[in-house]
Amino acid sequence: MPIDLRHDPAVVELVEKTERFVREYVLPLEDANAGDITAAGGDDLRREMNAKAKAEGIFAPHAPVEFGGLGLNMTDRAPVFEAAGYSTFGPVALHIGAPDEGNVHMLAHIASEEQRHKYLAPLATGEVRSGFAMTEPAPGAGSDPNALRTQAVRVDGGWKINGKKHFITGAEGAGFFIIMARTAGSPGDRGGATMFLAPADTPGITVGRHINTIDKAMIGGHCEVTFDDLFVPDADILGEVDEGYRYAQVRLGPARMTHVMRWLGAAKRCHDVAVDYVSRREGFGGRLGDLGMIQQMIADNEIDLAASRALLLKACHELDLGNHASDETSIAKTFAGEAYSRIADRSIQMCGGLGVSADLPIARLSQELRPFRVYDGPSEVHRWAIARRAVGRAKKAQAAAAAK
Amino acid sequence: MPIDLRHDPAVVELVEKTERFVREYVLPLEDANAGDITAAGGDDLRREMNAKAKAEGIFAPHAPVEFGGLGLNMTDRAPVFEAAGYSTFGPVALHIGAPDEGNVHMLAHIASEEQRHKYLAPLATGEVRSGFAMTEPAPGAGSDPNALRTQAVRVDGGWKINGKKHFITGAEGAGFFIIMARTAGSPGDRGGATMFLAPADTPGITVGRHINTIDKAMIGGHCEVTFDDLFVPDADILGEVDEGYRYAQVRLGPARMTHVMRWLGAAKRCHDVAVDYVSRREGFGGRLGDLGMIQQMIADNEIDLAASRALLLKACHELDLGNHASDETSIAKTFAGEAYSRIADRSIQMCGGLGVSADLPIARLSQELRPFRVYDGPSEVHRWAIARRAVGRAKKAQAAAAAK
Amino acid sequence: MPIDLRHDPAVVELVEKTERFVREYVLPLEDANAGDITAAGGDDLRREMNAKAKAEGIFAPHAPVEFGGLGLNMTDRAPVFEAAGYSTFGPVALHIGAPDEGNVHMLAHIASEEQRHKYLAPLATGEVRSGFAMTEPAPGAGSDPNALRTQAVRVDGGWKINGKKHFITGAEGAGFFIIMARTAGSPGDRGGATMFLAPADTPGITVGRHINTIDKAMIGGHCEVTFDDLFVPDADILGEVDEGYRYAQVRLGPARMTHVMRWLGAAKRCHDVAVDYVSRREGFGGRLGDLGMIQQMIADNEIDLAASRALLLKACHELDLGNHASDETSIAKTFAGEAYSRIADRSIQMCGGLGVSADLPIARLSQELRPFRVYDGPSEVHRWAIARRAVGRAKKAQAAAAAK
Amino acid sequence: MPIDLRHDPAVVELVEKTERFVREYVLPLEDANAGDITAAGGDDLRREMNAKAKAEGIFAPHAPVEFGGLGLNMTDRAPVFEAAGYSTFGPVALHIGAPDEGNVHMLAHIASEEQRHKYLAPLATGEVRSGFAMTEPAPGAGSDPNALRTQAVRVDGGWKINGKKHFITGAEGAGFFIIMARTAGSPGDRGGATMFLAPADTPGITVGRHINTIDKAMIGGHCEVTFDDLFVPDADILGEVDEGYRYAQVRLGPARMTHVMRWLGAAKRCHDVAVDYVSRREGFGGRLGDLGMIQQMIADNEIDLAASRALLLKACHELDLGNHASDETSIAKTFAGEAYSRIADRSIQMCGGLGVSADLPIARLSQELRPFRVYDGPSEVHRWAIARRAVGRAKKAQAAAAAK
Repeated sequence: MPIDLRHDPAVVELVEKTERFVREYVLPLEDANAGDITAAGGDDLRREMNAKAKAEGIFAPHAPVEFGGLGLNMTDRAPVFEAAGYSTFGPVALHIGAPDEGNVHMLAHIASEEQRHKYLAPLATGEVRSGFAMTEPAPGAGSDPNALRTQAVRVDGGWKINGKKHFITGAEGAGFFIIMARTAGSPGDRGGATMFLAPADTPGITVGRHINTIDKAMIGGHCEVTFDDLFVPDADILGEVDEGYRYAQVRLGPARMTHVMRWLGAAKRCHDVAVDYVSRREGFGGRLGDLGMIQQMIADNEIDLAASRALLLKACHELDLGNHASDETSIAKTFAGEAYSRIADRSIQMCGGLGVSADLPIARLSQELRPFRVYDGPSEVHRWAIARRAVGRAKKAQAAAAAK
Repeated sequence: MPIDLRHDPAVVELVEKTERFVREYVLPLEDANAGDITAAGGDDLRREMNAKAKAEGIFAPHAPVEFGGLGLNMTDRAPVFEAAGYSTFGPVALHIGAPDEGNVHMLAHIASEEQRHKYLAPLATGEVRSGFAMTEPAPGAGSDPNALRTQAVRVDGGWKINGKKHFITGAEGAGFFIIMARTAGSPGDRGGATMFLAPADTPGITVGRHINTIDKAMIGGHCEVTFDDLFVPDADILGEVDEGYRYAQVRLGPARMTHVMRWLGAAKRCHDVAVDYVSRREGFGGRLGDLGMIQQMIADNEIDLAASRALLLKACHELDLGNHASDETSIAKTFAGEAYSRIADRSIQMCGGLGVSADLPIARLSQELRPFRVYDGPSEVHRWAIARRAVGRAKKAQAAAAAK
Repeated sequence: MPIDLRHDPAVVELVEKTERFVREYVLPLEDANAGDITAAGGDDLRREMNAKAKAEGIFAPHAPVEFGGLGLNMTDRAPVFEAAGYSTFGPVALHIGAPDEGNVHMLAHIASEEQRHKYLAPLATGEVRSGFAMTEPAPGAGSDPNALRTQAVRVDGGWKINGKKHFITGAEGAGFFIIMARTAGSPGDRGGATMFLAPADTPGITVGRHINTIDKAMIGGHCEVTFDDLFVPDADILGEVDEGYRYAQVRLGPARMTHVMRWLGAAKRCHDVAVDYVSRREGFGGRLGDLGMIQQMIADNEIDLAASRALLLKACHELDLGNHASDETSIAKTFAGEAYSRIADRSIQMCGGLGVSADLPIARLSQELRPFRVYDGPSEVHRWAIARRAVGRAKKAQAAAAAK
Repeated sequence: MPIDLRHDPAVVELVEKTERFVREYVLPLEDANAGDITAAGGDDLRREMNAKAKAEGIFAPHAPVEFGGLGLNMTDRAPVFEAAGYSTFGPVALHIGAPDEGNVHMLAHIASEEQRHKYLAPLATGEVRSGFAMTEPAPGAGSDPNALRTQAVRVDGGWKINGKKHFITGAEGAGFFIIMARTAGSPGDRGGATMFLAPADTPGITVGRHINTIDKAMIGGHCEVTFDDLFVPDADILGEVDEGYRYAQVRLGPARMTHVMRWLGAAKRCHDVAVDYVSRREGFGGRLGDLGMIQQMIADNEIDLAASRALLLKACHELDLGNHASDETSIAKTFAGEAYSRIADRSIQMCGGLGVSADLPIARLSQELRPFRVYDGPSEVHRWAIARRAVGRAKKAQAAAAAK
């Protein structure tokens, strides 16, 4: 049977509905607020947009059907999330933004029946938002997860957690947190980590200052969060004790890909705005868009968009097959993260002075896209992992040849 | 129905057979002759390798089944051709090298019944080779096909052709030529071109000097060919008069993609040789392959290979759907052409002094790969076409918006 | 006599004084205000900083000695301006920011005795600021100066000017404007342009909205300015009628180089902050700054800084010799503009999450540096000019060879 | 006193003489032999060209005046060597090729009076050629000099040397060798190395196979050389025992810069050929050289040439001041090595099909230029050294700040 890359007609229709919804309803909200979702209304705006998305039948396309979602697999999410990401407010509108989308994904895979009820259901339906508390300030767990310092110690009936996190997306206003804490070993060696669930109002949780990052479209900010003698009962352990690193991988692969999807939309918008601009503007005896150096930028954007999309599809397909897809997701994440910055940068350049101004949205979109090369593993860490696996394969092949 | 990127098991098996055949039989021939197929025996070697490939059941996988081929579509050709291209002699061995492979493809689509018998059958079975005589020396048709100067004039019962071609791959020893000649308009404007078929021994055809290019793996060289009052009867017109540019597009899209497939194999080999090298060699207190800057090169090679493969698949799928796929093939060709040079260059660098020597095959493979950024349309021409279409779409959208 | 690249000891001492002044006094002001000079106090702050710089003997090092400046040539300005630019407030503090610095330079070359008194003297001493009104919104003069639309028509005793400008740096609060207006020909052809001087409070001059660009360190913003029947008497014509394009070149070459100098300081700061960070931070079993991929970024920054500085010196030297130095200034501007963005980007990446936050100054410095690839001629226009001259030289050589 | 970058008129005249000599006499010899100096006659041709260069008064411009050279410092060598390098045979013609030029330089600094007579005099005058035997096959001293394995052991009246070298440039036909051998410590740690002088016909020296590298312009090849119980008397120790690494640095800094000079000429030639081509050739309704994407390549070549030249001048000046200039030479070497490959690659691309053929010299010049990124320390090793020094400076500054 020949390979077929065409999406099911139902998915194609969903994409078109999402495109229309974003273009007509969401994009104007984003532009009116210069892309700052907090300034635009934060959670109040979110609820309003969510209600509208529900009415359109496009809310939470990734969530399990039992909770009112559309249950799309990764491959089918790709074009829908891209369409949503065309506005930086789109993912919040459809409730498919980070970290909620990844948390729904992970809870759907790992949560106990009780936890599905207590945590997943309100999250999937948009009743509450959530936080994923893993990253720590130096010298804790950043790019290197083995440096994990937040400590959970066994106490009667549960665990007591102490530690400091930062860059916790969506923390302000979150209903609950998934917390990664060390339950074995010492910072620097791998040892064991465990994931815990805790309502945000549990004593011992303090959401601190928002780190003022250059992206403004993630609801609830990127916050510092402190745990002081936070008690988590055994029933709120997510999955098994000491298996946190493994679950983190379960979450991170798909979460990386949904980042690639959403920001693909934003990168596409940069390109569209720039091509529209150079198609109208005259100079040097003709249309700017007909000048060779401009054409080169247009073409390179098209190539970068196409390659990002193609690598994304491949990685999603591997994930849908149930594979770890460590290589495929690292490759897609690294390429796309860098491609999006290139696309935004070329788009700015095509628009000249307006490109570096707020008269066009490209400069601020460029600020939304830049952090992706750092978030969810900097490019350097992914390259390191890709190379280690390649060298590992070579050593194995050498050993096999030597064994003959 | 979810998207599925997996090849049919029969294709997977064909790929594995091809890989084994290339590794065990073809690669040693290539290496023993430093990749120079003429020095290695030229057509004698080709016949020998073809016989072997037939015996293995992997000969001409792209050719129509009626002529003994396997009738693979473009998507399925991709991994098979890549496996063949792992040796630069592999495409000749399987009879899927340029220009024969593209000529088979075009004749299968356009040739009359009689022409199928006279030209396609012996070509598909490897009885003869062929040439595609389109490119001309300056100021004729090179990157800009509209500059076509070779002239065909109507005479009794057929056409008389005069002109000069160059870079005609495989001309030396070819059994027949497909000739592109102007039948309407003047050089510089589009006008009309027509394709003609002519046995190589027809009076008026002279194969001149081999242009000494840096690639050495294409059988029959890149030659100058002159037509002096060459007579072609009406029966040997390929398709319709004045439709040559259109047919050229039919040929060029798929032909570009099979270039991408074959050279992907060669690029993969550069990478494999380099990773093998840095996995063995020690320096700076450890294994070279564990140094960060080497890891970066390894990872970038992996990314470039994956992106080339993903873009290729997308373009092949569009072609299989019967679309022109002008954008998709231009994008895949441009990206891959440049990626292969990067891969070869990084692979050289990883191997240091040996990388720039004949002790490893990378330096000469780099010479095989470099011309791909020029052949079949330089990157600049493809970028120009990609950009023109993007600007065209923007103008159309502007007009549609204005019409509202 | 051998070439000597060492600056005079007096210049070296001036550089050291400037470095100390910037580090101890200016940088804290910048950082306390997140680099926004308007928020920091605008002209009030400027006067305060200027007084301090005067007290240190480092004020206006480029201005003619007769007006209290130090009269440095271009070559000697380079390290002083770089030292000032280490803080984005530094150029304002020393009164060497755009556009005043370039306006002083141009007036010193072209102004009549009366104009020197009326305009140059108060500008050079920092009593007033100035604007350079050349750039126009589409379809007027942007990258393509020939598109100039602002019109000056001859009236009794002077000229009447009508037109619209934008991106006029420093317009808000400027004491006077240098205005470029068409006095011959039509928009699109070259024709003639003339430069006019006009006090900012002359009837007919309206400073409109500030264009909200991503850079925040230029005092007086980037504004829209409208001229409605603005009358300029003959005495306030700067230089000769119809010679405006030529004078613009006189101004633009050096003005480009002082941009390169100032922003070199800001790029250097990005690098210093990043190297300091990776020299402290641990991860992956060692210091981040010892990881190969980080080392690559550090080294590439060092290379980019050194090359920018070396190209700058060469261009300045040519200008000091009295040459047009069109090639040298275009090359230095293009290379440096792009290098600074690369440096800022790598510096962000080295600092990970903090790199994309306001906890470190790199992200906002990156926003200051980005527009330089657009301001003062986008890279594409400079490349176009460089290439045209190279092709011109080749044609000339061909003609000379043919004439033999 | 203002900085002056102009060369002394005598140097300017020497450059012009060299340009004329190369253009009229040397270049035709190179082109007639496709750049292969061995095929062109090897040492016979060298003697012939040397005699001619002597007659022109341009022979050995770097050699001490006492031996008939012109005694130029590094800064003045730069334009002369560039002019010579415009032909790949030029450096041999002027006797300023590797390794002789670097060996003359080092002997002039370190050799004893007797050694000046015995080794330096015949070398400087071109009576003999020489080899510099440092690099070893894996696991010996390659990019990592500490891996040195060739061993010298104290014997009565001198030293006995055993070991294997490779990539020894000019070994075939050399009159003597400078040999780097370990006299203290073990492979992997630094320990001590010593330099020895030995006539090529000393028993125990065997020049083995030529490694078949892609560059063909260095006389005497890149050879394997073996030392079997080679006896070197104390009088032929070059400098002090155990000081070899220090002397190697003395040689390597300047030797790197003269590589940068010579290959700058070859890179310039690539560019000149390409610009000449695109200035003549028509296509797409105009001259190729007027197309935007071609203009971009032309401009980028001009920028790369200018930046290489500017960094070279800076590094040479530091060396002339007697500084180690480790950073400056590493930066110039790394940037130029990579720039030359980019220049050659763009030049090929501009010339399309002819660019990848032997009809133009660019493709083979590209092969001459590629190894420079590996020879004399690969780019990665230089970047590593640059970064280590930058981090070292940061640590020092942190310590100084902490000490306050």
